[in-house]
Amino acid sequence: MSNPALRATISLTTDFGHQGPFAAVMRAVIAGRCPSATVIDLTHDIPVHWPPEAGFWVRRAYPYFPAATVHVAVVDPGVGTERDIIAVTVDGHRFLAPDNGLLGELLDTRTDATCIRVDVEQLRARLALPPPSTTFHGRDLFAPAAAELAAGRLDVADLGPVWADWVPSQVDAPDSGAHGISGTVISIDTFGNLITNIDAAALGAMATPIVGVAGIRLALTTTYGRVSPGDYLALINSFDVVEIARAEGSAAAGLGIGRGAPVRITEQ
Amino acid sequence: MSNPALRATISLTTDFGHQGPFAAVMRAVIAGRCPSATVIDLTHDIPVHWPPEAGFWVRRAYPYFPAATVHVAVVDPGVGTERDIIAVTVDGHRFLAPDNGLLGELLDTRTDATCIRVDVEQLRARLALPPPSTTFHGRDLFAPAAAELAAGRLDVADLGPVWADWVPSQVDAPDSGAHGISGTVISIDTFGNLITNIDAAALGAMATPIVGVAGIRLALTTTYGRVSPGDYLALINSFDVVEIARAEGSAAAGLGIGRGAPVRITEQ
Amino acid sequence: MSNPALRATISLTTDFGHQGPFAAVMRAVIAGRCPSATVIDLTHDIPVHWPPEAGFWVRRAYPYFPAATVHVAVVDPGVGTERDIIAVTVDGHRFLAPDNGLLGELLDTRTDATCIRVDVEQLRARLALPPPSTTFHGRDLFAPAAAELAAGRLDVADLGPVWADWVPSQVDAPDSGAHGISGTVISIDTFGNLITNIDAAALGAMATPIVGVAGIRLALTTTYGRVSPGDYLALINSFDVVEIARAEGSAAAGLGIGRGAPVRITEQ
Repeated sequence: MSNPALRATISLTTDFGHQGPFAAVMRAVIAGRCPSATVIDLTHDIPVHWPPEAGFWVRRAYPYFPAATVHVAVVDPGVGTERDIIAVTVDGHRFLAPDNGLLGELLDTRTDATCIRVDVEQLRARLALPPPSTTFHGRDLFAPAAAELAAGRLDVADLGPVWADWVPSQVDAPDSGAHGISGTVISIDTFGNLITNIDAAALGAMATPIVGVAGIRLALTTTYGRVSPGDYLALINSFDVVEIARAEGSAAAGLGIGRGAPVRITEQ
Repeated sequence: MSNPALRATISLTTDFGHQGPFAAVMRAVIAGRCPSATVIDLTHDIPVHWPPEAGFWVRRAYPYFPAATVHVAVVDPGVGTERDIIAVTVDGHRFLAPDNGLLGELLDTRTDATCIRVDVEQLRARLALPPPSTTFHGRDLFAPAAAELAAGRLDVADLGPVWADWVPSQVDAPDSGAHGISGTVISIDTFGNLITNIDAAALGAMATPIVGVAGIRLALTTTYGRVSPGDYLALINSFDVVEIARAEGSAAAGLGIGRGAPVRITEQ
Repeated sequence: MSNPALRATISLTTDFGHQGPFAAVMRAVIAGRCPSATVIDLTHDIPVHWPPEAGFWVRRAYPYFPAATVHVAVVDPGVGTERDIIAVTVDGHRFLAPDNGLLGELLDTRTDATCIRVDVEQLRARLALPPPSTTFHGRDLFAPAAAELAAGRLDVADLGPVWADWVPSQVDAPDSGAHGISGTVISIDTFGNLITNIDAAALGAMATPIVGVAGIRLALTTTYGRVSPGDYLALINSFDVVEIARAEGSAAAGLGIGRGAPVRITEQ
């Protein structure tokens, strides 16, 4: 396509919630700089101070977005301190986030990713941005940068130097060993399903994987439909990670666990 | 207009909530196939396992949408089982939903509707779709089909055979008899108003209709403004159905009832 | 730009929440009349019966929107009574709201604003609108008017006579006197931060302002990052008003106060 701005897509992921105009003002800034962009709210309900979930969903969702989408993720407990901003390119998609581990899982698993440390002073000069507020970089830095990237007037390579010292995720990658795979609950959906960071690919060699969580053990099944109401089940979900569900109920409420809870998969 | 894609509109109604990227990924798939479509979230807060409310709102809201809008409604407890997908056309609008009763009220009341059972294998072949996940047909089947319909590259008639055996709604249609009209609370709005499935038209012959709900009896009034704070009132709401409200309060909380509660209207 | 509709922006602020199709139907009506408009949800989570917060956010957020944006704010406990609708222009932006004090703060502080009382009968005649419902003017009057303004087919001056008797805000403007500044908590964000209506400009002459709220006293600081977890702090936030926060916690929950609470700023 000759003019990328005609079909540019930007995704937004934050912990701003829906009270107040915070996500809206990011959209407003984008509308001013790239009015033709399609802006999609990935979610604004990431729990405060839990960047790993933002990175988890951005990593799993981006392949469904149009090529060259700009993904902005702002879960940023360190806003106003000296934390950096990074820009990452993978598969032609562009990602902007604070350098607080949010994109650590993506960078850890994709050795073909390019990571740039954003030179904020240079960005401000180039886009004629006023001094940013100390508490809302989403509006003052991320949104204008994303809009200019989407409009094709800025390239990730323009944003700063290549950067290898990005902050790793605050959640360890799943650990595979002789005794099985140890992972972590990263997200809970509206249904109360517990979504882990254990990719289906990690189970490749197992004949009959058993999922241990909150003191119970579950064989992996393939659909929500083959159990009785109230039963727990473990399955590979639609984003190809292990999920613990409860038929016609909430696994999170029933098991009394949440984000950060350990999950262990072993051979039967 | 010569190119329908220029102004195509798609509405989305689900029970996915706002946690996680589920609705967003449906939008992403649509953006890839029909980037110019205007996508409007009807609501993503339908209670889990309550398809009647999705169908209720889609039926009442669609006349306010532009001609030829594609309405996608996915409240789908049976995803991954053998339930079908149906496509319905009424008044030039197109509707896609699981065949679980969600569109039963629309089909029941509109004898001019056309219902098609979607041939999923044929759809996949035509759109070159990979095998769908077992748990997220919204992304894997509904979104691509909706986008292609909106783009004008697919017609409802292409989707499969005409189908008369659609599943009826799990909520009975209001029953009108000599003793009055019996209906059901289908939805509760943010204000706590109890919204029933009893259309104003059903009251046509009544001189002084009295609404009985949760043990109280209310005369129909015409506005929120003519009662004292705390009073209950019954009115015909802006979607032309009977609603029970509480002035400056929540009728749902005050009466202690919710979706599924019976409502009975009699002559004074 | 020659055709304003090509880049028109409309913001929506309501207390409709996300249950039900209420905000969506406003978007649907806009899509029918001005399909190219970019519609941005400022927020739909204004507390019921609290117009001051809607006006507060619209006033603080509008400068970030593109020129000539139409801002629609519907927090409307008096819908269906004789309350008027007003249209305001400031800085080239257009605002539509019920005349219930929602725009009172904006009108009070911007003497260059023009306020029009909307002649609803004339509007209906001009736009060929059917009689409005008694309970959903957002759909029946505000959305069509906003779309026509955005499309450039209607001017604010067409809407009715200039109006000086608009209803003032139900929250008093901050009071500055010899003993300091008295203001009010207007909003609480997702993080539990208490956001007041005291503008930074009001503090101009103070050497060491101390914020008194809920029995505690806090010196103004400049960032969330310079205190220990659990500490309370007062700062000028990204919208240039005084905010009370709690490091890695919720000030609202911790202090047990909410919207409407008094805040007093004095010299040390």
